[in-house]
Amino acid sequence: MLVKSSIEDFSRILGSSSPAPGGGSVAALSGALGADLVSMVCSLSIGKEDYEPFHNELAEVLADAQTLSKGLLERIDLDAKAFNGVMAAFKMAKETEEEKLSRKEAIQKGFKEAVLSPLGIARECLDVLKLSEKLLGKSNSNALSDLGVASQQAYAGLEGAVMNVKINIPSIKDEVFNTEISSEITNIIEDGRKIKDGIYKYVYENIG
Amino acid sequence: MLVKSSIEDFSRILGSSSPAPGGGSVAALSGALGADLVSMVCSLSIGKEDYEPFHNELAEVLADAQTLSKGLLERIDLDAKAFNGVMAAFKMAKETEEEKLSRKEAIQKGFKEAVLSPLGIARECLDVLKLSEKLLGKSNSNALSDLGVASQQAYAGLEGAVMNVKINIPSIKDEVFNTEISSEITNIIEDGRKIKDGIYKYVYENIG
Repeated sequence: MLVKSSIEDFSRILGSSSPAPGGGSVAALSGALGADLVSMVCSLSIGKEDYEPFHNELAEVLADAQTLSKGLLERIDLDAKAFNGVMAAFKMAKETEEEKLSRKEAIQKGFKEAVLSPLGIARECLDVLKLSEKLLGKSNSNALSDLGVASQQAYAGLEGAVMNVKINIPSIKDEVFNTEISSEITNIIEDGRKIKDGIYKYVYENIG
Repeated sequence: MLVKSSIEDFSRILGSSSPAPGGGSVAALSGALGADLVSMVCSLSIGKEDYEPFHNELAEVLADAQTLSKGLLERIDLDAKAFNGVMAAFKMAKETEEEKLSRKEAIQKGFKEAVLSPLGIARECLDVLKLSEKLLGKSNSNALSDLGVASQQAYAGLEGAVMNVKINIPSIKDEVFNTEISSEITNIIEDGRKIKDGIYKYVYENIG
């Protein structure tokens, strides 16, 4: 499992000529790092007198951030698997008509998985952004840069995941599926950009 | 060393109530992941007929990306150390006038380190962006989303590192130092944003 490897080893495997893990797994990791920074900012605020009025909200955000981090870490491996699934389908036998049909179906199934995997990453990165937003003005101001980085990572993960959705859509022959997914990623990008811009504005106005 | 820990463990340590590692280390990791994806895209292009004319350039970018990845991985630990240096200075004895002076000097030295560390990260993330830009139209088009994610990660690392510079500047009493650093980060952000916008435009126009 990739999440069991050291950062150093993951970096080396990522940089190699093997196409998986690639951008999708990195987007998931980026979202997880964002979620972890949200957790850290909550932990540096809970129990501090200044943030006492927000205690319950902070505890809720912390719990949600921990769940998102866990889910996104799992998606590092899942995304690499989704990619390898497409590759395996392409390598299937294609001698008989029956084999050709099975292979075609497997390829289509593989590409749908290779779209749904980063779509899930994009959704969860949006959730991390929403959590970061909740902390504005309600969390330790000494950790404001950490909150800023949390949103950077979540937003980078979101856009990166969307790019991975987009590159695979043209290979899918199910137009209903494609229209639905395209509409969802447009909304995710729009919502994410709005939240990210709001957070950056707050951070840059209140930092330094 | 943090880079020797598993992704899972790093995620857990990051999310804990300890303020280090924090946003600075994450920015460095983000830049390293960007550099690794640049390496991967180079490796997926070198030796392919379509990209034969760019072979030498691709080999150069690959070597530079590997160097940047190594440097940015080291900065994960260095940034956590820089933060701990400030904390240690604050805990120094302050009974005698001499102790007070030593402590004050150590705090100032610590804060300068806590500014120079993320500044170095921001510079190298900008270098990763410049490498990504060099690959546009000269690398494997199947890996275009990976190139997009590379630039996302490098840019997120750049802006995240800049936020970490900004939060520490007000604690430094050396105005010449502060003016110089502020001017450099303004340039880094401006250059980075321009390159990132160009890459996104290319990726979104040529993807899917």
